[in-house]
Amino acid sequence: MGKTVAVLGADGYIGWPMAMHLSRLGYDVVAVDNLARRGWDEEGGTYSLVPIPTMEQRVDRWHELTGNTIIWHHLDLCDHKALDAFMAEFVPEAVVHLAEQRSAPFSMIDRDHAVRTQVNNIVGNLNLMFAINERAPDCHLVKLGTMGEYGCPNIDIEEGYLTIEHNGRTDTLPYPKVPHSFYHLSKVADSQNIHFGTRIWGMRATDLNQGVVYGNQTQDTMLHPDLMTRLDFDSIWGTALNRFCVQAAAGLPMTVYGQGGQTRGYLDIRDTMACITLAIEHPAERGQCRVFNQFTEQFNLNELADMVLRARKARGWETTIAHVPNPRVESESHYYNAKHSALVDLGLQPHLLDESLLESMIELVEQHVDQIDPVLLQQPSVNWRTGGNEVWDAYASQSQVMAATDSIDSLVASQARPRAAQLQQD
Amino acid sequence: MGKTVAVLGADGYIGWPMAMHLSRLGYDVVAVDNLARRGWDEEGGTYSLVPIPTMEQRVDRWHELTGNTIIWHHLDLCDHKALDAFMAEFVPEAVVHLAEQRSAPFSMIDRDHAVRTQVNNIVGNLNLMFAINERAPDCHLVKLGTMGEYGCPNIDIEEGYLTIEHNGRTDTLPYPKVPHSFYHLSKVADSQNIHFGTRIWGMRATDLNQGVVYGNQTQDTMLHPDLMTRLDFDSIWGTALNRFCVQAAAGLPMTVYGQGGQTRGYLDIRDTMACITLAIEHPAERGQCRVFNQFTEQFNLNELADMVLRARKARGWETTIAHVPNPRVESESHYYNAKHSALVDLGLQPHLLDESLLESMIELVEQHVDQIDPVLLQQPSVNWRTGGNEVWDAYASQSQVMAATDSIDSLVASQARPRAAQLQQD
Repeated sequence: MGKTVAVLGADGYIGWPMAMHLSRLGYDVVAVDNLARRGWDEEGGTYSLVPIPTMEQRVDRWHELTGNTIIWHHLDLCDHKALDAFMAEFVPEAVVHLAEQRSAPFSMIDRDHAVRTQVNNIVGNLNLMFAINERAPDCHLVKLGTMGEYGCPNIDIEEGYLTIEHNGRTDTLPYPKVPHSFYHLSKVADSQNIHFGTRIWGMRATDLNQGVVYGNQTQDTMLHPDLMTRLDFDSIWGTALNRFCVQAAAGLPMTVYGQGGQTRGYLDIRDTMACITLAIEHPAERGQCRVFNQFTEQFNLNELADMVLRARKARGWETTIAHVPNPRVESESHYYNAKHSALVDLGLQPHLLDESLLESMIELVEQHVDQIDPVLLQQPSVNWRTGGNEVWDAYASQSQVMAATDSIDSLVASQARPRAAQLQQD
Repeated sequence: MGKTVAVLGADGYIGWPMAMHLSRLGYDVVAVDNLARRGWDEEGGTYSLVPIPTMEQRVDRWHELTGNTIIWHHLDLCDHKALDAFMAEFVPEAVVHLAEQRSAPFSMIDRDHAVRTQVNNIVGNLNLMFAINERAPDCHLVKLGTMGEYGCPNIDIEEGYLTIEHNGRTDTLPYPKVPHSFYHLSKVADSQNIHFGTRIWGMRATDLNQGVVYGNQTQDTMLHPDLMTRLDFDSIWGTALNRFCVQAAAGLPMTVYGQGGQTRGYLDIRDTMACITLAIEHPAERGQCRVFNQFTEQFNLNELADMVLRARKARGWETTIAHVPNPRVESESHYYNAKHSALVDLGLQPHLLDESLLESMIELVEQHVDQIDPVLLQQPSVNWRTGGNEVWDAYASQSQVMAATDSIDSLVASQARPRAAQLQQD
């Protein structure tokens, strides 16, 4: 019998291939999700360019093709009683926590989206920490953070901690953070809570500050169309490289925000699989809060757009680049040098971004080119200063969604009120 | 006509004297509270040693004695629609945000209290930021943080930011934080969100990292018994100095946690009044996130206990000190040197802790000695490693409170679910 690993957020872009990857390696995988991502698509009118079947169909197909069993478990981390029962039942050796709202633009649409992002992510993560401590204290928490927690400081970015000399004294402290969005801020809060959990409870934790992931194909997704993972291309859920490939395939200019000098860390989805596996195979010690920067290369937006342009030109296709006003508040020309040696030291062998990967992405997009809704590509992006999103607004005007908003508001309000409020003066 | 200032959390220990202080100085004060603090007393069986009347009685008495009007407004910051309407109606020049769950032990009782603390504080603060940005963008947010956000680093603590030289480059970044409890973590999350709000919206903000406040008497509270502020002495809500005075008055040993070398910043409640007023009178610029460390002196627990012992001895009263096992996870002997010059530079003239202050506190406690419930003084404190609180448990076993807990759980769970969840597969 293998060791049990729970993949939380197993219906997501990374979660589903991760569940298959660990299953193939012999782990007993429990795939957990609340299917929120599909709900957010319904809300905002977005969709995966590559169609994805239900979780039931996915795990059935996986079993049929490989003989391996992935247990599918519908669960919301914000439902702490169900989570507690889950941890007591499975007592996993490790949990891979990918179960968070993961879009910066989504969190910047308006107050409602900012609050929903922070409540969902922070409460889910707190519930998980308590469930681990109470039901499986030896369990290794492998948590997906983001390189966006650090922001773009004018000094080298270290892996989680920085040794600081100040007025003749020295200490090693959590690296100071200047995050980019309400979403990134939720991840910073998670990191702080997890660090605290390792200090007071002796929890084992690895916080993976991941760069921007690209690519859709792993050894496992390529086995069958039912095993594909999602490909997002809209301005809420699509990351830069995916979005560029889809814009180009649709015959539209690739839109670079501002001057395009914004530099970030990137990695291939196959390296995400390898990094998380390495973290599981080399668990943190009890009481250790280990932080790895999980990316393999740095690019700025102009470099990325140029790479797509060249890869398409090699096939004889013309592509244009358009610089549009930057909807985000960020530096468009800045120093960026982030360390990322810890995972390489554990054995990571990076897949660097090259023409063959770009060609396979372009090919995948071309196969689904008739599925591209140009409205999603043409909509203005969420503005960091003013919020708002046209497609969102169109959907939100439907009365059904508005009624749901009202009920969510009253829930948050009640949540914070004391239990004995009815006994008080008014 | 004066300038309008909203005091949020005006029913609290600091909030009520703050509302009177600003009213006396000529501000048009709107006192806002959701009365949560009184509800938490009902929940946990705690109470203020000094009886406090209702908010209606307080503002009536204030008007009767001074002729000044404080507008009382019952409002929960987590009710964003009511908050939005409030900001649109009053458009205050400044808001003093004291409306948070403020007890570290409360946040450490169990999962429920940790989650409630972080949701209440983070969501209330986010709602306030959005309401300011949308309804009163020139309003100055004066936010109470805590020195506990920093923890006890082995280097000097600066005021909010630290200039770091690293590998030959330099940047000034938010000071790295290692907070002490789930409550302190909620304040770190607030600070990060506010810093972001100043960057994306040009909000004006002053984040006051306050030390431990002592004392109960200000120029205004002393006018009439109805104008007194609360005096907490239990292990959940009472801070060290208040608790020592009450334990001694009850003839019990003053309980010092562990070795007693834990050093923190302290200040007199009259200096809290002065600091917040200085922040209002010298507002932050648009886009500025100003951080002041708000305390006047550093003491360790042994020094505090010794001071109370000596002050009582001067009156001929015997007092004993007992070192009890430390329920918290913290260093009991550590470096601590925190800067606190910014408020002095603005004109603060500190009231240092001396015998006359201690005598007035001891006298106040002695006046109410028959109100002391020894059960509250003898209960073990909340343990940072295991949670739990006996008095809390006794109250929580009442069916009414349990029913409320169930409903809060389902609220958080629903909050995080997508609106269109009903459309999805299961």
